[in-house]
Parts: sequence; structure tokens; C-alpha cells
Amino acid sequence: MVTVENSDAVFPAGTVEGVEFARRVPLPPPRPFLDTLRANLKETLFPDDPFQQFKNETGSRRFLVGLKYFFPVFQWAPRYNLSLLRSDLVAGFTIASLAIPQGISYAKLANLPPVLGLYSSFVPPMVYAVMGSSKDLAVGTVAVPSLLIASMLGKDVPPSQNPTLYVHLVFTATFFAGVFQASLGLLRLGFIVDFLSHATIVGFMGGAATVVCLQQLKGMLGLQHFTTATDLISVMESVFTQTHQWRWESVVLGSCFLFFLLLTRFLSKKGPKFFWISAAAPLTSVILGSLVVYLTHAENHGVQVIGYLKKGLNPPSLSNLVLSAPHMMVALKTGIITGIIALAEGIAVGRSFAMFKNYHIDGNKEMIAFGTMNIAGSLTSCYLTTGPFSRSAVNYNAGCKTALSNVVMAVTVMVTLLFLTPLFHYTPLVVLSAIIISAIAGLIDYEAALHLWQVDKIDFCVCMGAYLGVVFGSIEIGLVIAVAVSMLRILLFVARPRTTVLGNIPNSSTYRRMDQYSAAQSVPGVLIIRIDAPIYFANVSYLRERITRWTNEEEDMLKSKAETSLHYVILDMGAVGSIDSSGTGMLKEVKESLGRRGLQLVLANPGSEAMKKMDKSKVLETIGQEWIFLTVGEAAAACNFMLCTCKSGMVDEAERENIV
Amino acid sequence: MVTVENSDAVFPAGTVEGVEFARRVPLPPPRPFLDTLRANLKETLFPDDPFQQFKNETGSRRFLVGLKYFFPVFQWAPRYNLSLLRSDLVAGFTIASLAIPQGISYAKLANLPPVLGLYSSFVPPMVYAVMGSSKDLAVGTVAVPSLLIASMLGKDVPPSQNPTLYVHLVFTATFFAGVFQASLGLLRLGFIVDFLSHATIVGFMGGAATVVCLQQLKGMLGLQHFTTATDLISVMESVFTQTHQWRWESVVLGSCFLFFLLLTRFLSKKGPKFFWISAAAPLTSVILGSLVVYLTHAENHGVQVIGYLKKGLNPPSLSNLVLSAPHMMVALKTGIITGIIALAEGIAVGRSFAMFKNYHIDGNKEMIAFGTMNIAGSLTSCYLTTGPFSRSAVNYNAGCKTALSNVVMAVTVMVTLLFLTPLFHYTPLVVLSAIIISAIAGLIDYEAALHLWQVDKIDFCVCMGAYLGVVFGSIEIGLVIAVAVSMLRILLFVARPRTTVLGNIPNSSTYRRMDQYSAAQSVPGVLIIRIDAPIYFANVSYLRERITRWTNEEEDMLKSKAETSLHYVILDMGAVGSIDSSGTGMLKEVKESLGRRGLQLVLANPGSEAMKKMDKSKVLETIGQEWIFLTVGEAAAACNFMLCTCKSGMVDEAERENIV
Repeated sequence: MVTVENSDAVFPAGTVEGVEFARRVPLPPPRPFLDTLRANLKETLFPDDPFQQFKNETGSRRFLVGLKYFFPVFQWAPRYNLSLLRSDLVAGFTIASLAIPQGISYAKLANLPPVLGLYSSFVPPMVYAVMGSSKDLAVGTVAVPSLLIASMLGKDVPPSQNPTLYVHLVFTATFFAGVFQASLGLLRLGFIVDFLSHATIVGFMGGAATVVCLQQLKGMLGLQHFTTATDLISVMESVFTQTHQWRWESVVLGSCFLFFLLLTRFLSKKGPKFFWISAAAPLTSVILGSLVVYLTHAENHGVQVIGYLKKGLNPPSLSNLVLSAPHMMVALKTGIITGIIALAEGIAVGRSFAMFKNYHIDGNKEMIAFGTMNIAGSLTSCYLTTGPFSRSAVNYNAGCKTALSNVVMAVTVMVTLLFLTPLFHYTPLVVLSAIIISAIAGLIDYEAALHLWQVDKIDFCVCMGAYLGVVFGSIEIGLVIAVAVSMLRILLFVARPRTTVLGNIPNSSTYRRMDQYSAAQSVPGVLIIRIDAPIYFANVSYLRERITRWTNEEEDMLKSKAETSLHYVILDMGAVGSIDSSGTGMLKEVKESLGRRGLQLVLANPGSEAMKKMDKSKVLETIGQEWIFLTVGEAAAACNFMLCTCKSGMVDEAERENIV
Repeated sequence: MVTVENSDAVFPAGTVEGVEFARRVPLPPPRPFLDTLRANLKETLFPDDPFQQFKNETGSRRFLVGLKYFFPVFQWAPRYNLSLLRSDLVAGFTIASLAIPQGISYAKLANLPPVLGLYSSFVPPMVYAVMGSSKDLAVGTVAVPSLLIASMLGKDVPPSQNPTLYVHLVFTATFFAGVFQASLGLLRLGFIVDFLSHATIVGFMGGAATVVCLQQLKGMLGLQHFTTATDLISVMESVFTQTHQWRWESVVLGSCFLFFLLLTRFLSKKGPKFFWISAAAPLTSVILGSLVVYLTHAENHGVQVIGYLKKGLNPPSLSNLVLSAPHMMVALKTGIITGIIALAEGIAVGRSFAMFKNYHIDGNKEMIAFGTMNIAGSLTSCYLTTGPFSRSAVNYNAGCKTALSNVVMAVTVMVTLLFLTPLFHYTPLVVLSAIIISAIAGLIDYEAALHLWQVDKIDFCVCMGAYLGVVFGSIEIGLVIAVAVSMLRILLFVARPRTTVLGNIPNSSTYRRMDQYSAAQSVPGVLIIRIDAPIYFANVSYLRERITRWTNEEEDMLKSKAETSLHYVILDMGAVGSIDSSGTGMLKEVKESLGRRGLQLVLANPGSEAMKKMDKSKVLETIGQEWIFLTVGEAAAACNFMLCTCKSGMVDEAERENIV
């Protein structure tokens, strides 16, 4: 049998009826409430301990450290040199060649004048270069929020009916998105983004990519009218009720360019050296497409073109913000939803590349940077920007070294805005559609979904919920489904915690789950139950019933086998991370109801939190400090010892009951 | 130092570089997906295993068992005898004497014709007697849902403007509440009620009691007009802007009866034998009050009376249900909210008394009973009923034995309805106000709030949030605040799990938290981190950063002390109850990032769930099965052994790195 370990000097030995047992679980030293509160708040809001660097610094040094903290440009700029510049120049020009066609395409996706896509690649990257802490992120507009803006704001103010108001609402939504992002960062609430799980994002992005590709059918088929809904059924209806409107010229041109773009994508996957093939392909397509249209005058044969693009830099747009009813609320809602999605993408991208290069990204700081960049953008005729994956990957592969590559891109776009806009007059829209499809098709990550199915069925449900919700409902429905299922999972984990019966691993004092370890053997007369979650209000009723059921089942089993009857119930509290007032109440009730059946409740390995709460609620007194043990092994040994003493007549059975 | 335990035959021994180590953590046997799903669903929805009694039964016996399951009356009726009947008769008459004045009072609170309160004490108790499983619950209307009905429906259809429609809406809301309650029970979703924590209920009930008492100022001061808002400020404004309308006759009469009622309450607390003093007091007050008014003709001097009460039993009300726009939605909303609150009270009361008498209450079955009783009620001109605490306590103290006491009460109320209604003509409203105040003041449980402050500060915040929300906002606001804070706590527990560093308890192979056990000593070259929550998407970013920070801090500390540098990071997975796909991804990343720093990741005691997920996601391969140990002690011993062998030159340092 298991032997009782010797007590040592550090732990006051406990005694049960004069017999000495093992070591005790100490009560944590009392700690002032404000101290605990401060520690908890710090752990919740400042888990990365950003204040550490300010310690042991004088006033002026502190200011400098703070400046470097909020404007990382002051960290890297002093050490900047020519070799870094060379790398950043190459990367900057490369991403600019991607940014121009993509910017125009996504602006069309958001039902905005194409030039806004260029504006958005000018101011925000400059801001990010000063405030952002990622070295690899390339700032720009992204497909999913663009589509979301179009569908959410378009419902309220159709861009075809009131284009000016629509554009103003887009600026307003961008402004709110920026304010929301910056406040999340300032209030250290960055963890909200963590609630968008990987599974949610895979499903959501896949669904959004499907929807965006479907929307491109308008451009590819050369249709003039198209549904404003985004779900599969409406789009299919819109496409197939207009078969007589399909333009073969558009289809042929689009298919050629789509094939070209997908081919370059495929080629560039041969190795990181070939990244430039797919990076340069969109601009090449735009140039080729424009030339084709210019030479063949295809614009008169059903191929739609961009047309006139205004020359000049971003006009200010502060006075355009719509800050009054009735349209402000929809802009606010759009801003918050698109803001958080953009944030999730930007931060995930930043973190991924930071991990490759082994440097650290502070999520909350990034949020402030994104927020400031969008506020600045909304005042200078830009719409929502973030760090898109595709562009950042090209930036990384092109060998960028610092955020200066964003500045290079911005300057290139500026030159384009000042002098080169007329060149885009003949660019066919169908090429833009092809660019969007080729850029976004990769977001449908069926391999990740397959992986989720293999690893975790609930995550797969979350993923498919998001995907199907987006494809058959709307982008918001998909998001709500996925977040709700994810939350439900957490709540269910707590509401229905796993309880398992432990058994002794032979020849050791280790106790493990009987259902996991086939070798584990139950201890006669003792039932050991392990609770695998915090004991909270949400699960006390369940746990009370479950413990009763385990006890009933054990007693029935023992009765049927005519073995030693049950005397002790040990609760292994090792995995009970926290307990609330309902939880302590439940323990008291369990103690009492077991007592009525002549059973003794024993606790093993409660954490300091549980000890403190049990002490304060007097549950510790009810249970009796002598029935609380450091390990399950010691608790079982003590119970065993008591049982043996009873049997051998050293302590009378009736007396044993009295000990309690 | 800790010795490595011998491996035994049951666990395949693992080897690290030819050296044999301890026992291994087995992979759980593969289990078909549908089996797991069925087991999980059963545990979530049927934790009490209601099907067990149907096992090993033939068809007709099964039907009988099922009948007994859904209609507990068939369980106790066959064994009913005269001695039980005697007890139930006494209890039934006692609660009837309470039910009549309370029923009338609460109906006034809900702005309904007083006779509806009597109707509601006739049909629903009969239904409950057949279907309910509690022996002590006395069915009737309750104050808080009554007030909620008045404030929620009154906003849409003021009862003063359209009393008929208002009454019809109340029936409709009751109908929806019943359907909602029954469906929760049938769908086995009873655990939703568990999300209303004890702290929420204390705060919410206290707030509601305060609000209800404030509303009684109307009756006590004899005011004709009163605000429909329930918040403190509106009520105070309404009271003090009408000082000239106060009627001293009302105030005097009310104060006398309130004093009488509180006195009887106080006397009855002297012992359970005196329960009848407070039980009989309301009816006595009504009789006395009516006599006083009848004799003094006080109804002509500002004392308002009930007036004409219709004779006769409940008229049917099926045709009165409002099942069309525009009012159906508000009835639905009211039904769901009041339904869940009534459910929470009824089930809590039923469970409490069941615990006293040591019998079991099935929450889901109770919900079906409550639901059916309210559906039946809504078709027979009753409004929402449940098992109020005050009446059930009187029932219990009066010595009720079965649900038959409800039938006795119902019959008594029936007799009243048929013959005695004219007697209530002169009952002054002010007496009803006094009855409500004395009945409900006890719900302000400041001692429970104080206890919460001492035991758990967050629970106290939840409680005060609910209280202040109800008192200064509205009942719904209070409820939303409390539920939101409670949920946030669960989500925060998962989003910010506690991570602690473990140390060795001297002279043992036990490892415990260094901050809880002052005796615990760190192991040189090894960092042991314990994670106290499931590893879910919501905490992977946090855990990744936190593990990095623990490692950095440990390395800095060791560097400053010039001690053995860090080589191993052990993650104690003992308290990780569950893991999702983001979690396995996080472990892989931690393994890789530690590897880049020359550190080895070791896992100790992962549960079967975690093992399965890690295996399926190939993380087990990445980490290496040989780096997974049964206990922290064995993991630490293995690391120690490796470190010693390296130092003594048996294995070269470089070679050690290669093992990985």
C-alpha cells in the first residue's frame, strides 16, 4: 500500500485522531484588497509589462523612452544606414507596383471612386512608418472590409443614388474605426481581438473570399447591373437572369488575365526568389490591359474602363465627416465592425512576420498605430487601411528591413497621383476583377479547414458556421455565428466541467484518471473525484449533481460486488483554478449531504485562491482543516490508514464517525 | 535530489539518449467521432441520466415509468393516506389565507384587475400538483415578475388607456413564458438558469424589492397619479412633487398595518412553531382593514378600496391571446424575461426545500411543470405564476407532505371566487401595499451582500451592479449588467489564465506553486510553469507572451546571479482541462521559439483530451513523445539527470542539443 510520507519541518504536521499525517496546505498570507486588485488588473491589462523599461530612469530619459515606445521610428531611425535603405527601396517599389492596381480594385469593390484607393496608399503608410512596430507590414486597403463597407453602408445610402453622401459616410466609418482601434489600444483592451479565434478567421476569410470572387462575376461578365446583396443565392440569381447581357469580350479578356495572374502565382511558389513574378504581375496586367483597350478601342465594345482619374494629392476631408443623425449610427456600426476585422488581420499578419524574424510586436501599441493611421486617413480622403497579408508577404520577400519601405511606397503612389493618373484611363475593369480574384482566391484555405476537422470538431463547426453564414447569409451573420459558437464553447467548458474518477498508478503515490490510464486502480473504500474547471456559479448545480451521481454509482457498484463500503470522498482540487461564492457554498452543501450519508469529504491540493475563499466563507471550518491534504496520494494514504485502523479495531467504527 | 522512479511493466518506459526514464503518458484509444459526440451531448444535456430508470424494462412498464416520470402524482398518489391528508389540509388552508391577499396585491402591482390574482391561485396550483416534483413548493404569483410585466407591457400599452388590450397582452406574455419554460425543459437546456448566479439573484432581488417598496408609496400616501417609471429618481420626483396630494388617512392606516405585519414577522422568527403568526397576519389585516373602512366609511375620505370583484371562476382566455403584430413582439420579450426570472426563483426555492428534506429535484422536469402550468394559466385568465419563496416557506413550516396542499389551496380559492368576493369590496388598497412591503422587504438581503464582499469581490460587484442597475436604471438594465459581468468573469478566467512557477517541496517529488508554498525551491536549470486553464483561442496569444516573459525573467535572474543557465522549460498541463486547435498551434510555436533560444520544451501530465489533440495536430511529433512525462516530478528528474550527465561529461553539451 501507499506509505504516508514523512512530515517535514516546513509544513506543520496535521493530526487526525492523534495520528500524524503528511504536510498541510498553507493559507496564503492575507493581502490588502487593493494590492490584489492592482496585481489582477496589471495581469489582465498589462500582461507584457510595458512599464518595466521606465523603471530606474530619470524624468527626461523617461520622456525619451516613452517617445520611443509610442513612435518606434525613433528606435530604428538613428541606426539607419545606406545598406538598409537599398533593401527598403527595392521592397518599397515592389509593393507600390502591387499597391496601385490593388488599391484601385478594392476601391471599386467598396463602390468608391478608384482614386480613393490611391489616396489610401499614400497617407496611412506614412503614419504607420512613424508609429508601427512591425518591420514587415505593408499598409494598404483590404478586400473584406472593403466589401463590408459597401454592403453595410450601401444598404443605408445606395452609392448609385447619392454618391457624395456615400463617400462621406465611408470617411466617417473610417474615422470611427480609427477611434475604436486607438481606444482599444489605449485602454489595453487588445485581448478583445483574441476572441476571434483562428477557426473563426479561417471560416470567415474563406467565406468573404468566396463572396468577393462571386462579386467579380459582374466585372468578368461585363454586366451593368448587379445585385447589392452578397449571398450566393442572390448573386447567382442576378447572374443567370441576365445571361443575355453577358459580354464575350469581357469574358475573354478577363479569363486571359486571370489565367496569366494565376500562372504567375503558381510560378512564384517555386521558391522565395521568384516572389517578384507574382508581385509584378498585377501592374503588368494593368499596363497590358490598358494597352489592349487603347489599341483596340474595346471600350466601345462592352469592355468597361476606369475612365477619368483626378490628378493631385489627397484633398482634406475633415468637413466631410457625417457626425449627425440619421446616418451617423450606421457609420459607427460599420466603423466598429470593419475596424475590428481590419485589426485582427493586421495584428495577425504583424505577429506572424515578427515571429519569423524573432522580434516582438506589442498588440496594444499596434492598435494605437492602426487607429491613428485610420483617423489621419479619414481626414485626408482615405478609407479603411490595415496590413494586408498579400502585400506584407511581398514586402517581406522583397527583403524589406524597416517600416521605411512603406514610405517608399507612399512616395511612389504620390508621384503616380501627381503625374500618372491619366495613364489609367483605359484600364479595363475586368482586369481589376481578375486581380481581385487572383489575390483573394488563396484566402479560401480548405487545407486549414481539413486540419480543423481532424484536430477539433468544435473548431471545425465554428469555421463552417462562419463560412456558411457569410456565403449564404451575410458577412455580419457569419461573424456573429462564429463568435457566438466560440463563446458558447468557453461557457460550456465552465458550465459542464469534466469530472473524472482517479485511481492509483501501481507502485507509486501518483493518482491519475481511470479512463485515461488503464493501469490505475481504485482505492477500496475511497472515491477520488477530480474537477477539471473553476468552480463557478455556472457549474455549481451541475457539480453538486455530478458528485452525487459519482458517489451513488460507486456505492451501487460496491454493493453489487459486496466489497468494502464507501467511507471517503476525496475531491482533487488541483485543476480548480478559481472559485467564487457560489462555489464555496456548493462545497459546504456537498460536505453536508455527504455527511448525512455517513461519508467524509476530503480535499486534496486546493490552490491558494480556493484556500482563501474557503477560509473567508468559513467553509474551511465546516470541512475541517485536517481533511485537506497537499496531494491526492497523501489524502488517500490518510483515508486508507483510518480505514485499516478501524478494521483492526484500533479505532472503533462509531468513534471514526465522531472524529468528523 | 529527486530520484527517478522505476518504470513498471504497465507503462512503456521512455528513453532519452539511451537513458531510461519513468512512465509515459498514454494516448487515449481512438474513439469514433459519433461516440464522443454522443457522450458529450449526454453529459451536457442529461447530466442526471434520466434514462437509467428505463433500462431493463419492458414496453408497458416503460410507459408506466415514463408516466411516473412526467407526472410525479402517480408516484405519490397510490401511497397517499389519511395522516398525510391531515398535514396537507392544514398546510393548504394556511397558504390559502396568504394566497388570497397576496394574489390581490400582486395583481394590483401588475396593474391588473385584482380578481386575476385569485384566478392565478386556482388553475396553476392544480396543474403543478399533478406535474411538479417538489413536495413543498406553493404555487402563486410573485412580486418581481408582476412589476416587470407592468413596466415592460405598460410602456407599450398603458393599462389606463387600453385596459382590455393590456390584460390580453399579459395573458399572451404568460403564454410565451410558459412555452419558453417548457421548451427549455424539453430541450434539456435547464442549465441556462444556472447562469443566473447567486450574486446576481441577491442583487437583482434586492433591487427589485427596493423598487417594489418604492412603488407602494403610491398606495401608502393615497396618491391618485403616479409615475410609470420604476427608477428611484422618477419615483422620488413623483412623490415629492405631489406633497399636496398626500392623504393622512391613508398614511395612518397604512403605517398601522405595516407595523402590525412587521411585528408578526418578527414574532414568527422566534421559532418555527410561530410560523402561523406571520402566515395568518395578511388575511387578518385584510379583514380588519375592510371592517375599519366599512364601519368608518373611510372610502369617502381618501382611502381607496378594491371595489367590485367579479364572482365566478376563471373565464377561458384562449381567444384573448394576441398573436399578431404590432404587440406580439413585446409580449414575447416580456414572456421570455419574466419566464426565466420566475423559473430561477421557482427552481431555487424547490431545490432549497428538497435539500432540507433530502430528496431530489430534476430542474428540467420542473421547467416542464412550470411551463405547462403557465400555458394552462394563460388559457384560463391567469398571469405568470411560479413557486414564491415566502409562500413555500409557510407551506413547509405548516407541515405540508405532498403537492396536495396546493390542491387544497386551489379549492379554497375556488370557494372564495364562487361565494366570497363581495367581502373584499371594502378592502383598502393601503392594506395591500402594507402586505406587499412586509412580504418583500425581507428580499433585501444585505447580509448576503456583505458576505459576498468578504468572500469574493467580483461577486460583490456583480451583486451591486444588479442592485444599482435595477434601482437607478430599470429591472432589465440591472439584469443585463449582472449577467454581462458574470459572463465577463468566466471569459476573463479563460482569456487571462493564471500561470505560476512551480518549485520542489523539499524531501519529496511534489512540485507546487512557489507563491503559495514558501518552502518550494526552484530546480537549477529548469523552469516549471503551470497553466491553470484550458488552452483556448482566447488565451493563446496571452499564454505565448506570458511563457516568453517567465522565461526571460528566469534567464535575467539567473544571469544576474551567475547561476546555471536555463536549459529546460517544463509546462505542467495537469490543470489544462481542454485544448483547441489554436492551443495546439500555440504549443508548436512555443516549442519552436524556445528551440531557437536553445531551450527544450517538456510537458508534464497532459490529460487525455490534450494528448489526443496534440497527436492529431502532429504537435506531439514536434515536441517528441520522449519529452512528455507523467508527473512534474519525473519531468524535473529527467531534466536534472540530463543536466548532470552533461556537466559530468557523459554526454557532450552539443550532443545534448542534438537529442532534440
